Amino acid sequence: MTATGLRLRPLGIDTQQEHVIYMRRDCHVCRAEGFESQTRVEVGLRERFIIATLNVVQSELLATGEASLSTSAWRALGAAPGDTVTVTHAPTLDSLSAMRSKIYGHRLDAQAFDAIIGDVAAGRYSDLHLAAFLTACAGGRMDLQETIALTRAMVHVGDRIDWGRTPIADKHCVGGLPGNRTTPIVVAIVTAAGLTMPKTSSRAITSPAGTADVMETLTRVDLDVTAMRRVVEREGGCLVWGGALTLSPADDVLIRVERPLDLDSDAQLVASVLSKKIAAGATHALIDIPVGPTAKVRSEEEAHRLQALMEQVAAAHGLHLRVLRTHGSQPVGRGVGPALEAHDVLAVLRGAAAAPVDLRMRALVLAGELLEFCGHSIPGTGRSEAWRLLDSGAAWAKFQAICEAQGGLREPGVAPLQERVTAEHAGYVSGIDSRRLARVAKLAGAPGAPTAGLDLHVKLGDEVQLGMPLFTLHAEAPGELAYAKHYLATHPFIKLSDTVAP
Amino acid sequence: MTATGLRLRPLGIDTQQEHVIYMRRDCHVCRAEGFESQTRVEVGLRERFIIATLNVVQSELLATGEASLSTSAWRALGAAPGDTVTVTHAPTLDSLSAMRSKIYGHRLDAQAFDAIIGDVAAGRYSDLHLAAFLTACAGGRMDLQETIALTRAMVHVGDRIDWGRTPIADKHCVGGLPGNRTTPIVVAIVTAAGLTMPKTSSRAITSPAGTADVMETLTRVDLDVTAMRRVVEREGGCLVWGGALTLSPADDVLIRVERPLDLDSDAQLVASVLSKKIAAGATHALIDIPVGPTAKVRSEEEAHRLQALMEQVAAAHGLHLRVLRTHGSQPVGRGVGPALEAHDVLAVLRGAAAAPVDLRMRALVLAGELLEFCGHSIPGTGRSEAWRLLDSGAAWAKFQAICEAQGGLREPGVAPLQERVTAEHAGYVSGIDSRRLARVAKLAGAPGAPTAGLDLHVKLGDEVQLGMPLFTLHAEAPGELAYAKHYLATHPFIKLSDTVAP
Repeated sequence: MTATGLRLRPLGIDTQQEHVIYMRRDCHVCRAEGFESQTRVEVGLRERFIIATLNVVQSELLATGEASLSTSAWRALGAAPGDTVTVTHAPTLDSLSAMRSKIYGHRLDAQAFDAIIGDVAAGRYSDLHLAAFLTACAGGRMDLQETIALTRAMVHVGDRIDWGRTPIADKHCVGGLPGNRTTPIVVAIVTAAGLTMPKTSSRAITSPAGTADVMETLTRVDLDVTAMRRVVEREGGCLVWGGALTLSPADDVLIRVERPLDLDSDAQLVASVLSKKIAAGATHALIDIPVGPTAKVRSEEEAHRLQALMEQVAAAHGLHLRVLRTHGSQPVGRGVGPALEAHDVLAVLRGAAAAPVDLRMRALVLAGELLEFCGHSIPGTGRSEAWRLLDSGAAWAKFQAICEAQGGLREPGVAPLQERVTAEHAGYVSGIDSRRLARVAKLAGAPGAPTAGLDLHVKLGDEVQLGMPLFTLHAEAPGELAYAKHYLATHPFIKLSDTVAP
Repeated sequence: MTATGLRLRPLGIDTQQEHVIYMRRDCHVCRAEGFESQTRVEVGLRERFIIATLNVVQSELLATGEASLSTSAWRALGAAPGDTVTVTHAPTLDSLSAMRSKIYGHRLDAQAFDAIIGDVAAGRYSDLHLAAFLTACAGGRMDLQETIALTRAMVHVGDRIDWGRTPIADKHCVGGLPGNRTTPIVVAIVTAAGLTMPKTSSRAITSPAGTADVMETLTRVDLDVTAMRRVVEREGGCLVWGGALTLSPADDVLIRVERPLDLDSDAQLVASVLSKKIAAGATHALIDIPVGPTAKVRSEEEAHRLQALMEQVAAAHGLHLRVLRTHGSQPVGRGVGPALEAHDVLAVLRGAAAAPVDLRMRALVLAGELLEFCGHSIPGTGRSEAWRLLDSGAAWAKFQAICEAQGGLREPGVAPLQERVTAEHAGYVSGIDSRRLARVAKLAGAPGAPTAGLDLHVKLGDEVQLGMPLFTLHAEAPGELAYAKHYLATHPFIKLSDTVAP
């Protein structure tokens, strides 16, 4: 142990993302430096340095001369038990002045965003700082130039893949529509057509499932760049989790704080989506914006604003972008939750008789558009080409090959606990509240519990009789099932009317 | 242990404010309920319930069936080792929807503020939520009605003292001017005149010292309402820390997150100041707003806006309010830091020959104004009456009596480490940057280390020769002294010019 060093002792405390260091109140470093709880400190081990929040220990949990780290901090430092770390005051972060300037309503320039995003990606912001930054950028407080600068900063701070060819196809759905899991189907069709589509997806932010959560019930998704390249070179496409790569790493940090805050922000959304696409080497990106009263985007005006922002930011980065606005009045497919949505995807790819028609149609429209956009199909023929590739089994064969290359295809599981919810009176389904529905699926355990969520048995306009099943709750734990039912009791998400909706 | 209970084992981890519960990943409650790290849970013990953030433990730190709490959570629950707590999912906080609405730029009504502030005061907001709420209200995003509603909500959620008489005098300085410690002197003068002035003060938020920090170097300040009443009934006034009372408790919660974020917000400032005054039973409040290029309020326009907001919010709550705008171009007195400022206060009260003239003059102006405002002195005679009470020793006698009633007067300490900083060339003092100066004092350890800070030896306009002392750094730990010097090397706060400033 050096004069200012502390010996690391494992305590196994998982604080999720934020790095925490545990130190004795009476340790010589605390005394000499004058640290208090919640102070930000710099922890060094060999050539690595991280910023951590101090939690003071007032017990014999740690012996004199010892310190401990949260799980994430052990990982970030590459530390082993018994290693000796140095602890000093955290350096002043100049970028926090820029952040405060944004909070006070001032515009930030590119340099300011580079500084902020650099510090975010390096883990130098506390969760409080991250929450403040996200809040300051939410609610329409970022103009076009700021959004372009934020996007560029997020690309620059991470790796950027060069595929050495063009076009490189990509797609993204601006969330909010439960069950709208078209991506695996679109990738299968487009790569079956011979195009290159190296798809990286995220896990859920505020929804019951992200594409990465769904694909994880089918195959391995945490590939590194080398493994991803191997899959793409062999099969022309992949379906991996972007978080295992270092594409736009600041986005991964921000998203983990956005989730508990449940914040939506146009600028953050556009920067998040486009920085990932640009970093992943895409040249042609198709964006699906579902519009509906309870979708993420609720009105045509809002969709138009988001579309214009996306197009302008994409253009500033040399990315070809096409936006499709789709109906977002109700969930797509039947399942909501990772495994339940995977079952729907498999049914469409296998051409099962019971496959959800709406999911199939949406995937065909998107794939057709992408085939034309990338110059593979003559305008007007993309959709029929997509249809041919799906119905011939070519897309299903390609999907299986991609999953095999990623580590093997498996059947998604089924939840041990299921409970049907039935109609309390007869009527027509006149409304499905996607936000409440998503909440129910999350309370039931999705996406953390992969087989949890719910299966819808009705669509808008359907006629139902008293006692007919409306949906089935799926859960892995009784507590979660109870919690979803408790919320449902006061927050039903299916509206039954006496007459057919106009 | 009940079926869903967990036995509490002390770990002694201090996370400062946020309640944290430590649970084993494989514990039956985690498994049954499906909790993950950072989940918000409700922890119950007998009739008390708190919301806490879950940190998962993946080691033998806790045995099966055991859980632990952070220091603040033990305190909030009144828990003892071996107690059995119940843990369930935290209920959905409806007020978070209101908070998000504010983030998205919508106005909030009184009901929304009541809901938010109620949850804040009850500790139901995570630090992330608090950071988001503060950010959403910063930067001029609150209108008058919202500020009135926020103030009212902050008063309602705590206790409110009724002194059964009028006037009840109070004063407050809108910070930003280091060393401007007039409050103890004003209270001594005003109560010596026979008026009632039960003064509650806060600790530093972003400054090197708050009045409570300064008073704590002289006497006991953590009195409860009963003890405070006893002091006021006997002496007509007191100088206590507001945080030990439950006046505007939401403010105490918010301030602890504002501090690391270093955020200023007009609405939050007004609500914080006025809710404390109203809850403390004040009828007449005098507000000192120093205006200067490096003070908190930098321009006459800003001061005017803040004054108008304060007057309107005070009027809406039936509080008589008078604002004095004062010069804020340089620090007041000599010392900056709890004990150093206390020495200045004592020098003025004792009538010491070396007492800082500027601090004395400011205190006399404020006390005189307050004597007139409360109807004690005829307009135009308040200042000479204040002068008489100070120079006759009446104020010093009253101050000693108040400190004795609070628990005894003691001399403030002196820092073990002191280092003079001298002029590197001759010239005139043409500028003193209060923000940088405050930062240096904080890096030297203030206010955590009570005797730390700095002592100024020059004022604006002073002529200095090469090698003359400009100020003396005071520290309790070598690490802190070094840190202050390191910052000073690149951020000097005293500007020397060749000619006298115009």
